[in-house]
Amino acid sequence: MVIVYVIITYDVSEKRVAKVNKKLKEYLIWTQNSVFEGEITRTLLKKCLFELENIVDESVDSVSVYEIKNPNHLNKYIFGVDKSFNDMFI
Amino acid sequence: MVIVYVIITYDVSEKRVAKVNKKLKEYLIWTQNSVFEGEITRTLLKKCLFELENIVDESVDSVSVYEIKNPNHLNKYIFGVDKSFNDMFI
Repeated sequence: MVIVYVIITYDVSEKRVAKVNKKLKEYLIWTQNSVFEGEITRTLLKKCLFELENIVDESVDSVSVYEIKNPNHLNKYIFGVDKSFNDMFI
Repeated sequence: MVIVYVIITYDVSEKRVAKVNKKLKEYLIWTQNSVFEGEITRTLLKKCLFELENIVDESVDSVSVYEIKNPNHLNKYIFGVDKSFNDMFI
């Protein structure tokens, strides 16, 4: 089982934002704005992206996927408000 | 000289968006929406973040910094429109 750390950012038409958000929430953690992230198996990531492809309109929308093979290679820090943390208590 | 690959996403008050964008454009490449990325030296990254801190209001804004120590550990793909590519010709 291969686990990767993934960051997904999207820039989609307003009418599809809620659907894209709902889909990504099934697999990852919401960070801020249009950014989701988390550890995921490659298999689930494939499934997630396949389902996303059926939601977005690839002629106008854009989804960026950053896959980091080993989470130890990632150094993450936030300044200002940690919105995902706040979100946990809402 | 240590070079890292960095992805910066922000969620800031509308009145500061233009300033944050302008600042990040000095150092990184705009990808989509509120996402910038690129290779940068640690020294310049520090400078960039220091300058950003003077722009954002840390009580309401949020900036996430993802630093990948070795770009070889990053696998990036986009589906849909590559907005940063389009941007180059605007």
